[in-house]
Amino acid sequence: MPAIKVDHLAVVVEDMDAALKFWQDALGLPLQGTESNEHEAVDVAFLPVGESRIELLKPTTEDSGIAKYLAKRGAGMHHVCIAVTDIEAAMQQIAEHGAQLINETPRTREDGTRYAFVHPKSTGGVMVELYEVPGKA
Amino acid sequence: MPAIKVDHLAVVVEDMDAALKFWQDALGLPLQGTESNEHEAVDVAFLPVGESRIELLKPTTEDSGIAKYLAKRGAGMHHVCIAVTDIEAAMQQIAEHGAQLINETPRTREDGTRYAFVHPKSTGGVMVELYEVPGKA
Repeated sequence: MPAIKVDHLAVVVEDMDAALKFWQDALGLPLQGTESNEHEAVDVAFLPVGESRIELLKPTTEDSGIAKYLAKRGAGMHHVCIAVTDIEAAMQQIAEHGAQLINETPRTREDGTRYAFVHPKSTGGVMVELYEVPGKA
Repeated sequence: MPAIKVDHLAVVVEDMDAALKFWQDALGLPLQGTESNEHEAVDVAFLPVGESRIELLKPTTEDSGIAKYLAKRGAGMHHVCIAVTDIEAAMQQIAEHGAQLINETPRTREDGTRYAFVHPKSTGGVMVELYEVPGKA
């Protein structure tokens, strides 16, 4: 079974300070870090909880994918990321079951980690990210 | 810090078999169990992943809260449940920070566990359930 854990739950927010007021101050999650991702045009805050983390995403432009999602759907949960041991095996198994992958081959982050998205229409309405954590089988 | 882990992520689905085809067959999560919750008028499937689980909810009537959610918002993520050690302390801290609780006092399940919901308008758009797992601090 290649799925290890919920790596993160991504939440699109309109107001980062207001969101941190809940997740950090009121709920008490530690703020592990923040970053500005220019490629995706989002500010991100990372808040670990157990083996997972909450990722708050705030669009920094009006024409990014996340900004369009926010305008269309409103603030809320955007995707869930499941850590897997072998992304190619996971993607192959998903494709063999007729589910639609958004990425046909894994994409690679700057730090070398590999990921891919599954289309919500194949999952019951959830955007699912797969993220490879090799060797943790 | 009273928050322990993501206990579960609840997903509202239109077609349970189609959803299980992804989460169980394609992604490979084990199906821990299913139940028919007459009080909430939903069929539920539980699929553990790491220390968390995915809960698939399918409305069994057309006038339940979950059915109305599905009709209004479509299938997808409904709420995230965070396990906490002391639900009264967590609720007090949340209220003190001005966040709006849907339940003013904890509700109790048949098995004695206690839970409460936080209103999405206070969290950046996410329905958050708190679930008490006592003594696991």
